[in-house]
Amino acid sequence: MPRNRQIRLKSRPAGMPTVEHFTLTESPRPEPAEGEVLTRTLLLSLDPYMRGRMDEGKSYAPPIPVGGVMGGETVGEIIASRHPEIAVGDIVLGYGNWQEYSVLPGAAVRKLDVSAAPISTALGVLGMPGRTAYVGLLDIAKPKPGETVVVSAASGAVGSVVGQMAKIKGSRAVGIAGGETKCRYVVEELGFDACIDYRAPDFQDALARACPKGIDINFENVGGAVLNAIWPLLNEFARVPVCGLVAQYNDTAPAPGPSFVPILKKRLDVRGFIVSDHRERLADFLRDTTQWVREGRIKYREDFVDGLERAPEAFLGLLQGKNFGKLIVRVAS
Amino acid sequence: MPRNRQIRLKSRPAGMPTVEHFTLTESPRPEPAEGEVLTRTLLLSLDPYMRGRMDEGKSYAPPIPVGGVMGGETVGEIIASRHPEIAVGDIVLGYGNWQEYSVLPGAAVRKLDVSAAPISTALGVLGMPGRTAYVGLLDIAKPKPGETVVVSAASGAVGSVVGQMAKIKGSRAVGIAGGETKCRYVVEELGFDACIDYRAPDFQDALARACPKGIDINFENVGGAVLNAIWPLLNEFARVPVCGLVAQYNDTAPAPGPSFVPILKKRLDVRGFIVSDHRERLADFLRDTTQWVREGRIKYREDFVDGLERAPEAFLGLLQGKNFGKLIVRVAS
Repeated sequence: MPRNRQIRLKSRPAGMPTVEHFTLTESPRPEPAEGEVLTRTLLLSLDPYMRGRMDEGKSYAPPIPVGGVMGGETVGEIIASRHPEIAVGDIVLGYGNWQEYSVLPGAAVRKLDVSAAPISTALGVLGMPGRTAYVGLLDIAKPKPGETVVVSAASGAVGSVVGQMAKIKGSRAVGIAGGETKCRYVVEELGFDACIDYRAPDFQDALARACPKGIDINFENVGGAVLNAIWPLLNEFARVPVCGLVAQYNDTAPAPGPSFVPILKKRLDVRGFIVSDHRERLADFLRDTTQWVREGRIKYREDFVDGLERAPEAFLGLLQGKNFGKLIVRVAS
Repeated sequence: MPRNRQIRLKSRPAGMPTVEHFTLTESPRPEPAEGEVLTRTLLLSLDPYMRGRMDEGKSYAPPIPVGGVMGGETVGEIIASRHPEIAVGDIVLGYGNWQEYSVLPGAAVRKLDVSAAPISTALGVLGMPGRTAYVGLLDIAKPKPGETVVVSAASGAVGSVVGQMAKIKGSRAVGIAGGETKCRYVVEELGFDACIDYRAPDFQDALARACPKGIDINFENVGGAVLNAIWPLLNEFARVPVCGLVAQYNDTAPAPGPSFVPILKKRLDVRGFIVSDHRERLADFLRDTTQWVREGRIKYREDFVDGLERAPEAFLGLLQGKNFGKLIVRVAS
């Protein structure tokens, strides 16, 4: 009987997880019931939000139970189908999780047009991260020409798209990233107006110099010290869509946020959002972003890791900013 | 020559001000130029935002210069007019400041209909505080029937109106106030569903019990410890209009705010606002609120202090929650 290798949550981390919090197990390959499909995982997306699901307690997604298979979005090939509209050989996007095979309801997967774009883009620039950028920037922050948009994790899957969309809308895009290589890429390849290395000793001053007219939009991906550096530079009526707080996901106690006084005095709008609340924008996002990618106005970079067994290590690197571009595990080819 | 008594800012406070930071001076009564009017101050409004204007530094209103007359809204009687549409004897609302007489541009005052409502209401329930409640609750927070609305400083000029408007909109209104007398008034007179004494030792637990379905709207007036107690009770998609932070106005360094993690996980919308940015709602506010007051659906309480010279002491009491209702100085009768 065919086997299914899976990565499970072994125990809940307190603070930064290690490879010890994951375990690789094998179980029998499942079989689809009526209406379901069996997929072979080709690509597994690794994303910062997964850290939250390793914790106990209420969040927007339920926690992964201890011993449960780690959750995640995948691109898979259909190898058995009991759904009338999905055929063996189809390539689909779905929540196949950290495993080689998965059974999913046919209605829960989306067929990919393999001739339209590389299938990996369905996990990145044309997938959840790109859509997060689209909804957070265009719908929530609403950039205007000439405004200054700052985005942290600027070379990452979300941040890279935020800055390029800001440029398309006529705004000034200032990235924040870790290290000179990433910063150079953000400016030279992605076309941001500036990118500041948050590890540099003069980070706060350099950021202020890169934003001579202050900051109108802070697309918040990381929180912590980077957010604190941005906070005093915000302009009146600045918008702060809060997309992620990766610098704080490993905090064992909730760290305080920046002062509320500027929220009042500058009439800031600070708004958390989760892309899955905005499914109604999927078609618009795909239409616009596919077009922008085709025109070369949005570029993307992917960081591939080979082998399901390397997913934990790669994920831990993601939490520390070691990836360079959208992190994807090649589970099979 | 008639004299004009004025209260001036003597020096900038670091932290909580004292009466020593104010000084009473006399100067010649001014004369109106063409287009201007001379008013005799009848009533002076005292409001928490005035604390901000005593500080150096950028805020939404420019700081009062050291030696300058303290700013504030007044109801005055016209005693000389060089404006064609304003006559001696008219009662007007304007920024007459902390003084017995003031010269104002005719275009900067609004004539009050003395038959429609007591003139003091133009500084409270039918004035800036009431309008702050209206804009912040109805336009920004948008309460829905059955939602739970929490408001701090619930017996005050803004908070009292917020809760009563929440009830009009079918929401559950939970107030927070200092002491049993104020809390009883908020429930028994104003009709809130509950009111919790923030000075009680079991404040946090009592607040949780008063909000069994969590909090959908936190109309934030005070900040500090009260905000921190509210923070964990907020529901998903809760709105937090930030109207004032009176507990923090005397901080010498900006205190940190609550954790950003719930902003993300619960998709909170935290939004600072200043009523003067929303002048377009003045007519709607006056129409609706005048009607609600007439119908007895919105009640109000005013706390009068007699004599301009008592304004500093009364203002300091306001910063410590010693007033009970809208604080107004009777400067002349």
